[in-house]
Amino acid sequence: MKVLIVFAHPESKSFNAALKNTAVSTLTETGHEVKVSDLYEIGWNFHVDRTNFTELKDNDYFKPQSEQPLGKYIQKIKDEQAKVTWCDMIIFQFPMYWYSMPSILKSWVDIVFSAGFAYGGEYGYFEKAGFAGKKALICTTTGGPEFFYTEKGRSGNYKRILYPIIYGMFVFTGMESYEPQVFFGPAHGTDESRKEMLKKYSDYLKDIDNQKFIPFNKSDKFEGQMMTLKENEKTNIEIIGDEK
Amino acid sequence: MKVLIVFAHPESKSFNAALKNTAVSTLTETGHEVKVSDLYEIGWNFHVDRTNFTELKDNDYFKPQSEQPLGKYIQKIKDEQAKVTWCDMIIFQFPMYWYSMPSILKSWVDIVFSAGFAYGGEYGYFEKAGFAGKKALICTTTGGPEFFYTEKGRSGNYKRILYPIIYGMFVFTGMESYEPQVFFGPAHGTDESRKEMLKKYSDYLKDIDNQKFIPFNKSDKFEGQMMTLKENEKTNIEIIGDEK
Repeated sequence: MKVLIVFAHPESKSFNAALKNTAVSTLTETGHEVKVSDLYEIGWNFHVDRTNFTELKDNDYFKPQSEQPLGKYIQKIKDEQAKVTWCDMIIFQFPMYWYSMPSILKSWVDIVFSAGFAYGGEYGYFEKAGFAGKKALICTTTGGPEFFYTEKGRSGNYKRILYPIIYGMFVFTGMESYEPQVFFGPAHGTDESRKEMLKKYSDYLKDIDNQKFIPFNKSDKFEGQMMTLKENEKTNIEIIGDEK
Repeated sequence: MKVLIVFAHPESKSFNAALKNTAVSTLTETGHEVKVSDLYEIGWNFHVDRTNFTELKDNDYFKPQSEQPLGKYIQKIKDEQAKVTWCDMIIFQFPMYWYSMPSILKSWVDIVFSAGFAYGGEYGYFEKAGFAGKKALICTTTGGPEFFYTEKGRSGNYKRILYPIIYGMFVFTGMESYEPQVFFGPAHGTDESRKEMLKKYSDYLKDIDNQKFIPFNKSDKFEGQMMTLKENEKTNIEIIGDEK
Protein backbone atom coordinates (compact mmCIF):
# COMPACT_ATOMS: atom_id res chain seq x y z
CA MET A 1 0.00 0.00 0.00
CA LYS A 2 0.89 3.64 -0.34
CA VAL A 3 0.75 5.04 3.19
CA LEU A 4 0.59 8.68 4.26
CA ILE A 5 1.55 9.33 7.89
CA VAL A 6 0.33 12.67 9.20
CA PHE A 7 2.50 13.42 12.20
CA ALA A 8 1.53 16.04 14.79
CA HIS A 9 3.96 16.36 17.68
CA PRO A 10 6.13 19.43 18.33
CA GLU A 11 9.16 17.45 19.54
CA SER A 12 11.16 15.29 17.13
CA LYS A 13 12.65 13.28 20.05
CA SER A 14 9.23 12.44 21.52
CA PHE A 15 7.67 9.00 21.92
CA ASN A 16 5.16 10.02 19.26
CA ALA A 17 8.07 10.59 16.90
CA ALA A 18 9.39 7.13 17.80
CA LEU A 19 6.00 5.64 16.91
CA LYS A 20 6.07 7.53 13.60
CA ASN A 21 9.62 6.32 12.89
CA THR A 22 8.58 2.76 13.76
CA ALA A 23 5.77 2.98 11.24
CA VAL A 24 8.06 4.34 8.53
CA SER A 25 10.64 1.58 8.99
CA THR A 26 8.19 -1.30 9.53
CA LEU A 27 5.99 -0.40 6.59
CA THR A 28 8.95 0.23 4.29
CA GLU A 29 10.56 -3.07 5.27
CA THR A 30 7.35 -4.95 4.56
CA GLY A 31 7.07 -3.56 1.05
CA HIS A 32 4.83 -0.54 1.48
CA GLU A 33 5.56 2.96 0.20
CA VAL A 34 5.48 5.70 2.83
CA LYS A 35 5.22 9.48 2.80
CA VAL A 36 5.19 11.61 5.97
CA SER A 37 3.57 14.98 6.50
CA ASP A 38 5.35 16.30 9.60
CA LEU A 39 3.02 19.20 10.32
CA TYR A 40 5.30 21.10 12.69
CA GLU A 41 8.26 20.65 10.37
CA ILE A 42 6.46 21.93 7.28
CA GLY A 43 5.17 24.88 9.31
CA TRP A 44 1.49 24.05 8.86
CA ASN A 45 -0.01 27.23 10.18
CA PHE A 46 -3.55 27.66 8.85
CA HIS A 47 -7.10 27.71 10.04
CA VAL A 48 -10.17 27.73 7.79
CA ASP A 49 -10.23 31.29 6.48
CA ARG A 50 -9.77 33.48 3.42
CA THR A 51 -5.99 32.92 3.36
CA ASN A 52 -6.51 29.27 2.30
CA PHE A 53 -7.37 30.50 -1.19
CA THR A 54 -5.60 32.34 -4.00
CA GLU A 55 -8.91 33.88 -5.05
CA LEU A 56 -12.47 33.90 -3.74
CA LYS A 57 -15.79 33.56 -5.50
CA ASP A 58 -17.36 35.88 -2.93
CA ASN A 59 -15.09 38.41 -1.24
CA ASP A 60 -17.92 39.92 0.80
CA TYR A 61 -19.23 36.81 2.49
CA PHE A 62 -16.77 34.02 3.22
CA LYS A 63 -18.49 30.64 3.14
CA PRO A 64 -15.95 27.78 3.21
CA GLN A 65 -18.38 25.21 1.78
CA SER A 66 -18.88 27.41 -1.30
CA GLU A 67 -15.23 28.26 -1.84
CA GLN A 68 -13.69 24.83 -1.19
CA PRO A 69 -15.22 22.98 -4.18
CA LEU A 70 -13.68 25.56 -6.54
CA GLY A 71 -10.24 24.35 -5.48
CA LYS A 72 -8.45 27.71 -5.67
CA TYR A 73 -6.07 26.71 -2.91
CA ILE A 74 -2.63 27.99 -2.10
CA GLN A 75 0.13 25.58 -3.09
CA LYS A 76 0.85 24.25 0.41
CA ILE A 77 -2.72 23.00 0.69
CA LYS A 78 -2.71 21.51 -2.82
CA ASP A 79 0.48 19.62 -1.91
CA GLU A 80 -1.25 17.97 1.04
CA GLN A 81 -4.32 17.07 -1.01
CA ALA A 82 -2.04 15.48 -3.63
CA LYS A 83 -0.56 13.25 -0.91
CA VAL A 84 -4.04 12.18 0.17
CA THR A 85 -4.99 11.38 -3.42
CA TRP A 86 -1.77 9.39 -3.77
CA CYS A 87 -2.23 7.19 -0.72
CA ASP A 88 -4.23 4.02 -0.05
CA MET A 89 -4.01 4.45 3.71
CA ILE A 90 -3.68 7.36 6.12
CA ILE A 91 -2.19 7.16 9.61
CA PHE A 92 -2.83 9.98 12.06
CA GLN A 93 0.02 9.98 14.59
CA PHE A 94 -0.66 12.30 17.52
CA PRO A 95 -0.69 12.71 21.28
CA MET A 96 -4.23 12.96 22.64
CA TYR A 97 -4.93 16.57 23.59
CA TRP A 98 -8.28 17.20 25.25
CA TYR A 99 -9.84 13.88 24.25
CA SER A 100 -9.02 14.69 20.64
CA MET A 101 -6.21 15.53 18.23
CA PRO A 102 -3.88 18.55 18.55
CA SER A 103 -5.13 21.69 16.80
CA ILE A 104 -2.39 21.49 14.16
CA LEU A 105 -3.78 18.16 12.95
CA LYS A 106 -7.37 19.36 13.30
CA SER A 107 -6.54 22.30 11.06
CA TRP A 108 -5.00 19.94 8.50
CA VAL A 109 -8.26 17.96 8.43
CA ASP A 110 -10.47 21.07 8.43
CA ILE A 111 -8.67 22.35 5.34
CA VAL A 112 -7.34 19.33 3.42
CA PHE A 113 -10.53 17.20 3.73
CA SER A 114 -12.41 19.84 1.77
CA ALA A 115 -15.90 19.90 0.31
CA GLY A 116 -15.78 18.57 -3.26
CA PHE A 117 -12.61 16.61 -2.52
CA ALA A 118 -13.31 14.52 0.58
CA TYR A 119 -17.12 14.59 0.28
CA GLY A 120 -19.98 16.34 -1.51
CA GLY A 121 -19.93 17.76 -5.01
CA GLU A 122 -19.48 14.90 -7.46
CA TYR A 123 -19.00 12.66 -4.43
CA GLY A 124 -21.49 11.91 -1.69
CA TYR A 125 -20.97 10.88 1.92
CA PHE A 126 -19.86 7.67 3.60
CA GLU A 127 -19.40 4.89 0.99
CA LYS A 128 -19.94 7.43 -1.79
CA ALA A 129 -17.49 9.99 -0.42
CA GLY A 130 -14.20 11.02 -1.97
CA PHE A 131 -11.92 8.68 -0.04
CA ALA A 132 -13.91 5.47 -0.62
CA GLY A 133 -11.53 2.54 -0.91
CA LYS A 134 -8.90 4.09 1.35
CA LYS A 135 -8.10 2.92 4.87
CA ALA A 136 -7.31 4.93 7.98
CA LEU A 137 -5.63 4.35 11.31
CA ILE A 138 -5.26 6.37 14.50
CA CYS A 139 -2.06 5.86 16.46
CA THR A 140 -2.16 7.94 19.62
CA THR A 141 -0.78 8.28 23.13
CA THR A 142 -2.47 9.33 26.36
CA GLY A 143 -1.30 11.02 29.52
CA GLY A 144 -3.40 8.82 31.78
CA PRO A 145 -3.33 5.06 32.39
CA GLU A 146 -5.51 2.54 30.56
CA PHE A 147 -8.09 2.01 33.32
CA PHE A 148 -8.94 5.70 33.08
CA TYR A 149 -10.16 5.09 29.52
CA THR A 150 -12.40 2.06 30.06
CA GLU A 151 -16.20 1.98 30.06
CA LYS A 152 -16.30 2.28 33.86
CA GLY A 153 -13.19 4.43 34.17
CA ARG A 154 -13.30 8.14 34.87
CA SER A 155 -12.97 9.18 31.20
CA GLY A 156 -15.04 6.43 29.65
CA ASN A 157 -14.12 4.08 26.80
CA TYR A 158 -11.32 5.55 24.67
CA LYS A 159 -12.94 4.33 21.47
CA ARG A 160 -16.00 6.42 22.20
CA ILE A 161 -13.74 9.39 22.90
CA LEU A 162 -12.19 8.86 19.45
CA TYR A 163 -15.59 8.42 17.76
CA PRO A 164 -15.65 11.93 16.19
CA ILE A 165 -12.34 11.15 14.47
CA ILE A 166 -13.00 7.54 13.53
CA TYR A 167 -16.52 8.01 12.31
CA GLY A 168 -16.66 11.74 11.58
CA MET A 169 -13.38 12.02 9.68
CA PHE A 170 -12.62 8.51 8.42
CA VAL A 171 -15.95 6.78 7.81
CA PHE A 172 -17.75 9.96 6.74
CA THR A 173 -15.21 10.46 3.93
CA GLY A 174 -15.58 6.85 2.79
CA MET A 175 -12.58 5.28 4.50
CA GLU A 176 -12.52 2.03 6.45
CA SER A 177 -11.16 2.55 9.96
CA TYR A 178 -8.84 0.11 11.66
CA GLU A 179 -9.11 -0.33 15.44
CA PRO A 180 -7.23 2.64 16.94
CA GLN A 181 -3.79 1.84 18.30
CA VAL A 182 -3.63 3.61 21.65
CA PHE A 183 -0.59 3.65 23.91
CA PHE A 184 -1.49 4.61 27.45
CA GLY A 185 0.73 6.80 29.58
CA PRO A 186 4.13 6.21 27.92
CA ALA A 187 5.55 9.21 29.81
CA HIS A 188 4.92 7.36 33.08
CA GLY A 189 6.50 4.14 31.81
CA THR A 190 10.08 2.89 31.60
CA ASP A 191 12.44 2.61 28.65
CA GLU A 192 11.58 -1.07 28.65
CA SER A 193 7.80 -0.54 28.60
CA ARG A 194 8.13 2.03 25.84
CA LYS A 195 10.21 -0.39 23.78
CA GLU A 196 7.47 -2.96 24.20
CA MET A 197 4.92 -0.45 22.96
CA LEU A 198 7.01 0.21 19.85
CA LYS A 199 7.32 -3.53 19.26
CA LYS A 200 3.59 -4.00 19.69
CA TYR A 201 2.92 -1.27 17.12
CA SER A 202 5.50 -2.70 14.74
CA ASP A 203 3.93 -6.16 15.04
CA TYR A 204 0.49 -4.68 14.36
CA LEU A 205 1.76 -2.92 11.22
CA LYS A 206 3.67 -5.96 9.94
CA ASP A 207 0.31 -7.68 9.72
CA ILE A 208 -1.61 -4.64 8.45
CA ASP A 209 -3.06 -6.49 5.48
CA ASN A 210 -4.90 -8.80 7.90
CA GLN A 211 -6.01 -6.27 10.50
CA LYS A 212 -9.73 -5.80 11.05
CA PHE A 213 -11.81 -2.72 10.36
CA ILE A 214 -14.42 -1.44 12.78
CA PRO A 215 -17.65 -2.91 11.36
CA PHE A 216 -19.78 0.23 11.06
CA ASN A 217 -23.16 -0.03 9.40
CA LYS A 218 -23.18 0.61 5.66
CA SER A 219 -26.02 2.47 3.97
CA ASP A 220 -28.05 -0.72 3.54
CA LYS A 221 -28.62 -0.83 7.30
CA PHE A 222 -30.52 2.46 7.13
CA GLU A 223 -33.93 3.04 5.59
CA GLY A 224 -36.39 5.73 4.56
CA GLN A 225 -35.88 9.29 3.42
CA MET A 226 -34.32 10.16 6.75
CA MET A 227 -31.94 7.20 6.65
CA THR A 228 -32.96 5.80 10.01
CA LEU A 229 -31.31 2.68 11.36
CA LYS A 230 -33.37 -0.43 10.70
CA GLU A 231 -34.86 -2.41 13.59
CA ASN A 232 -32.48 -4.58 15.62
CA GLU A 233 -29.31 -3.12 14.12
CA LYS A 234 -26.61 -1.88 16.49
CA THR A 235 -26.10 1.88 16.74
CA ASN A 236 -22.70 3.37 15.95
CA ILE A 237 -21.94 3.98 19.57
CA GLU A 238 -22.67 0.34 20.39
CA ILE A 239 -20.48 -0.81 17.52
CA ILE A 240 -17.49 1.34 18.40
CA GLY A 241 -17.86 0.60 22.09
CA ASP A 242 -17.70 -3.15 21.63
CA GLU A 243 -14.57 -4.70 22.98
CA LYS A 244 -12.26 -6.27 20.44
CA MET B 1 -22.58 36.24 35.95
CA LYS B 2 -19.42 37.22 34.14
CA VAL B 3 -19.59 35.47 30.78
CA LEU B 4 -16.77 34.88 28.31
CA ILE B 5 -17.90 34.05 24.77
CA VAL B 6 -15.20 32.42 22.68
CA PHE B 7 -16.26 32.92 19.08
CA ALA B 8 -14.79 30.90 16.23
CA HIS B 9 -16.25 31.68 12.82
CA PRO B 10 -14.30 33.34 9.98
CA GLU B 11 -17.26 35.42 8.71
CA SER B 12 -18.64 38.29 10.80
CA LYS B 13 -21.94 38.21 8.86
CA SER B 14 -22.50 34.48 9.48
CA PHE B 15 -25.32 32.86 11.44
CA ASN B 16 -22.76 31.90 14.06
CA ALA B 17 -21.97 35.59 14.45
CA ALA B 18 -25.70 36.27 14.84
CA LEU B 19 -25.86 33.67 17.62
CA LYS B 20 -22.87 35.32 19.28
CA ASN B 21 -24.47 38.76 18.96
CA THR B 22 -27.73 37.38 20.37
CA ALA B 23 -25.84 36.08 23.40
CA VAL B 24 -24.09 39.40 23.94
CA SER B 25 -27.30 41.42 23.82
CA THR B 26 -29.49 38.96 25.75
CA LEU B 27 -26.99 38.41 28.53
CA THR B 28 -26.19 42.12 28.82
CA GLU B 29 -29.88 43.05 28.96
CA THR B 30 -30.51 40.50 31.70
CA GLY B 31 -27.80 41.92 33.91
CA HIS B 32 -24.78 39.79 33.08
CA GLU B 33 -21.35 41.09 32.14
CA VAL B 34 -19.97 39.83 28.82
CA LYS B 35 -16.55 39.68 27.18
CA VAL B 36 -15.95 38.21 23.72
CA SER B 37 -12.82 36.57 22.38
CA ASP B 38 -13.33 36.71 18.62
CA LEU B 39 -10.53 34.36 17.62
CA TYR B 40 -10.35 35.29 13.94
CA GLU B 41 -10.49 38.98 14.77
CA ILE B 42 -7.67 38.84 17.32
CA GLY B 43 -5.60 36.80 14.86
CA TRP B 44 -5.30 33.75 17.11
CA ASN B 45 -2.67 31.85 15.20
CA PHE B 46 -0.93 29.37 17.50
CA HIS B 47 -0.53 25.68 18.00
CA VAL B 48 1.12 24.02 21.01
CA ASP B 49 4.80 24.63 20.38
CA ARG B 50 7.87 26.52 21.54
CA THR B 51 6.51 29.88 20.32
CA ASN B 52 3.86 29.86 23.06
CA PHE B 53 6.57 30.76 25.57
CA THR B 54 8.92 33.66 26.19
CA GLU B 55 11.48 31.25 27.64
CA LEU B 56 11.80 27.50 28.06
CA LYS B 57 13.00 25.39 30.96
CA ASP B 58 14.35 22.83 28.48
CA ASN B 59 15.37 24.08 25.06
CA ASP B 60 16.52 20.65 23.90
CA TYR B 61 13.40 18.65 24.58
CA PHE B 62 10.07 20.43 24.30
CA LYS B 63 7.51 18.91 26.66
CA PRO B 64 4.38 21.05 26.90
CA GLN B 65 3.25 19.56 30.23
CA SER B 66 6.56 20.60 31.81
CA GLU B 67 6.68 24.09 30.34
CA GLN B 68 3.06 25.09 30.82
CA PRO B 69 2.98 25.11 34.64
CA LEU B 70 5.85 27.63 34.66
CA GLY B 71 3.56 30.14 32.98
CA LYS B 72 6.18 31.87 30.83
CA TYR B 73 3.62 32.64 28.17
CA ILE B 74 3.63 35.32 25.53
CA GLN B 75 1.26 38.19 26.33
CA LYS B 76 -1.51 37.16 23.90
CA ILE B 77 -1.91 33.86 25.73
CA LYS B 78 -1.79 35.49 29.16
CA ASP B 79 -4.56 37.84 28.04
CA GLU B 80 -6.82 34.91 27.22
CA GLN B 81 -6.07 33.16 30.49
CA ALA B 82 -6.93 36.36 32.35
CA LYS B 83 -10.35 36.37 30.67
CA VAL B 84 -10.93 32.77 31.75
CA THR B 85 -9.94 33.62 35.33
CA TRP B 86 -12.32 36.59 35.23
CA CYS B 87 -15.40 34.72 34.05
CA ASP B 88 -18.00 32.59 35.84
CA MET B 89 -19.20 31.02 32.60
CA ILE B 90 -17.69 30.22 29.22
CA ILE B 91 -19.63 29.91 25.98
CA PHE B 92 -18.00 28.22 22.99
CA GLN B 93 -19.70 29.56 19.85
CA PHE B 94 -18.68 27.62 16.74
CA PRO B 95 -19.86 25.83 13.61
CA MET B 96 -19.36 22.07 13.88
CA TYR B 97 -16.40 21.06 11.73
CA TRP B 98 -15.75 17.32 11.49
CA TYR B 99 -17.90 16.36 14.48
CA SER B 100 -15.90 18.80 16.60
CA MET B 101 -14.83 22.43 16.93
CA PRO B 102 -12.85 24.40 14.31
CA SER B 103 -9.08 24.15 14.72
CA ILE B 104 -8.80 27.81 15.75
CA LEU B 105 -10.92 27.10 18.83
CA LYS B 106 -9.18 23.78 19.46
CA SER B 107 -5.85 25.60 19.50
CA TRP B 108 -7.27 28.13 21.98
CA VAL B 109 -8.22 25.25 24.30
CA ASP B 110 -4.95 23.35 23.74
CA ILE B 111 -2.98 26.41 24.83
CA VAL B 112 -5.17 28.43 27.20
CA PHE B 113 -6.44 25.46 29.26
CA SER B 114 -2.88 24.76 30.32
CA ALA B 115 -1.42 22.36 32.87
CA GLY B 116 -1.16 24.12 36.22
CA PHE B 117 -3.93 26.54 35.27
CA ALA B 118 -6.88 24.43 34.11
CA TYR B 119 -5.80 21.21 35.87
CA GLY B 120 -2.88 19.56 37.60
CA GLY B 121 -0.20 21.25 39.67
CA GLU B 122 -1.83 22.78 42.75
CA TYR B 123 -5.16 21.73 41.23
CA GLY B 124 -6.34 18.24 40.43
CA TYR B 125 -8.84 16.98 37.91
CA PHE B 126 -12.63 17.12 37.64
CA GLU B 127 -14.13 18.70 40.79
CA LYS B 128 -10.63 19.58 42.00
CA ALA B 129 -9.50 21.14 38.73
CA GLY B 130 -8.72 24.80 38.11
CA PHE B 131 -12.10 25.86 36.78
CA ALA B 132 -14.23 24.32 39.55
CA GLY B 133 -17.27 26.50 40.19
CA LYS B 134 -17.42 27.79 36.63
CA LYS B 135 -20.08 26.83 34.08
CA ALA B 136 -19.76 26.12 30.38
CA LEU B 137 -22.02 26.03 27.36
CA ILE B 138 -21.61 24.88 23.76
CA CYS B 139 -23.62 26.78 21.16
CA THR B 140 -23.05 25.25 17.75
CA THR B 141 -24.50 24.82 14.28
CA THR B 142 -24.49 21.83 11.94
CA GLY B 143 -24.57 21.43 8.20
CA GLY B 144 -26.93 18.45 8.32
CA PRO B 145 -30.52 18.16 9.57
CA GLU B 146 -31.49 17.07 13.08
CA PHE B 147 -32.49 13.47 12.22
CA PHE B 148 -28.94 12.89 11.02
CA TYR B 149 -27.75 13.49 14.61
CA THR B 150 -30.12 11.21 16.50
CA GLU B 151 -29.32 7.85 18.09
CA LYS B 152 -30.57 5.97 15.02
CA GLY B 153 -29.53 8.61 12.48
CA ARG B 154 -26.51 8.25 10.25
CA SER B 155 -24.16 10.29 12.50
CA GLY B 156 -25.48 9.14 15.85
CA ASN B 157 -26.62 11.25 18.80
CA TYR B 158 -25.10 14.74 18.66
CA LYS B 159 -24.50 14.79 22.39
CA ARG B 160 -22.24 11.77 22.07
CA ILE B 161 -20.42 13.50 19.23
CA LEU B 162 -19.85 16.47 21.54
CA TYR B 163 -18.74 14.27 24.46
CA PRO B 164 -15.00 15.00 24.06
CA ILE B 165 -15.74 18.71 24.42
CA ILE B 166 -18.41 18.53 27.12
CA TYR B 167 -16.66 15.98 29.31
CA GLY B 168 -13.05 16.26 28.17
CA MET B 169 -12.77 20.05 28.21
CA PHE B 170 -15.53 21.26 30.52
CA VAL B 171 -16.05 18.59 33.17
CA PHE B 172 -12.38 17.54 33.25
CA THR B 173 -11.39 21.12 34.18
CA GLY B 174 -14.04 21.27 36.91
CA MET B 175 -16.82 23.08 35.09
CA GLU B 176 -20.49 22.18 35.06
CA SER B 177 -21.77 21.74 31.51
CA TYR B 178 -25.17 22.95 30.38
CA GLU B 179 -27.03 20.93 27.74
CA PRO B 180 -25.45 21.94 24.41
CA GLN B 181 -27.51 24.33 22.30
CA VAL B 182 -27.34 22.93 18.79
CA PHE B 183 -28.95 24.55 15.76
CA PHE B 184 -29.32 22.12 12.90
CA GLY B 185 -28.77 23.11 9.29
CA PRO B 186 -29.42 26.87 9.49
CA ALA B 187 -27.87 27.29 6.02
CA HIS B 188 -30.69 25.17 4.59
CA GLY B 189 -33.39 27.10 6.47
CA THR B 190 -35.25 30.32 5.76
CA ASP B 191 -34.85 33.80 7.23
CA GLU B 192 -37.89 32.98 9.30
CA SER B 193 -36.51 29.67 10.64
CA ARG B 194 -33.19 31.32 11.45
CA LYS B 195 -35.00 34.09 13.35
CA GLU B 196 -36.79 31.42 15.34
CA MET B 197 -33.46 29.79 16.18
CA LEU B 198 -32.09 33.10 17.45
CA LYS B 199 -35.22 33.61 19.53
CA LYS B 200 -34.94 30.09 20.94
CA TYR B 201 -31.35 30.75 21.94
CA SER B 202 -32.23 34.12 23.43
CA ASP B 203 -35.04 32.54 25.46
CA TYR B 204 -32.66 29.87 26.69
CA LEU B 205 -30.13 32.46 27.81
CA LYS B 206 -32.73 34.71 29.46
CA ASP B 207 -33.37 31.81 31.82
CA ILE B 208 -29.73 30.77 32.16
CA ASP B 209 -29.84 30.86 35.97
CA ASN B 210 -32.42 28.06 35.89
CA GLN B 211 -30.98 25.90 33.11
CA LYS B 212 -29.94 22.36 33.99
CA PHE B 213 -26.44 20.90 33.93
CA ILE B 214 -25.69 17.47 32.51
CA PRO B 215 -25.65 15.26 35.64
CA PHE B 216 -22.26 13.58 35.26
CA ASN B 217 -21.03 11.37 38.07
CA LYS B 218 -18.95 13.11 40.70
CA SER B 219 -15.95 11.42 42.30
CA ASP B 220 -18.11 9.78 44.97
CA LYS B 221 -19.61 7.50 42.31
CA PHE B 222 -16.19 5.97 41.68
CA GLU B 223 -14.25 3.69 44.00
CA GLY B 224 -10.90 2.03 44.52
CA GLN B 225 -7.42 3.10 43.56
CA MET B 226 -8.35 2.93 39.90
CA MET B 227 -11.49 5.02 40.41
CA THR B 228 -13.86 2.52 38.85
CA LEU B 229 -17.54 3.30 38.57
CA LYS B 230 -19.55 1.75 41.40
CA GLU B 231 -22.12 -0.96 40.67
CA ASN B 232 -25.43 0.16 39.14
CA GLU B 233 -24.26 3.67 38.33
CA LYS B 234 -24.76 4.97 34.80
CA THR B 235 -21.67 5.36 32.62
CA ASN B 236 -20.83 8.77 31.14
CA ILE B 237 -21.94 7.73 27.71
CA GLU B 238 -25.31 6.65 29.08
CA ILE B 239 -25.67 9.91 30.98
CA ILE B 240 -24.84 12.18 28.06
CA GLY B 241 -26.90 10.11 25.66
CA ASP B 242 -30.06 10.37 27.72
CA GLU B 243 -32.73 12.47 26.11
CA LYS B 244 -33.64 15.68 27.90
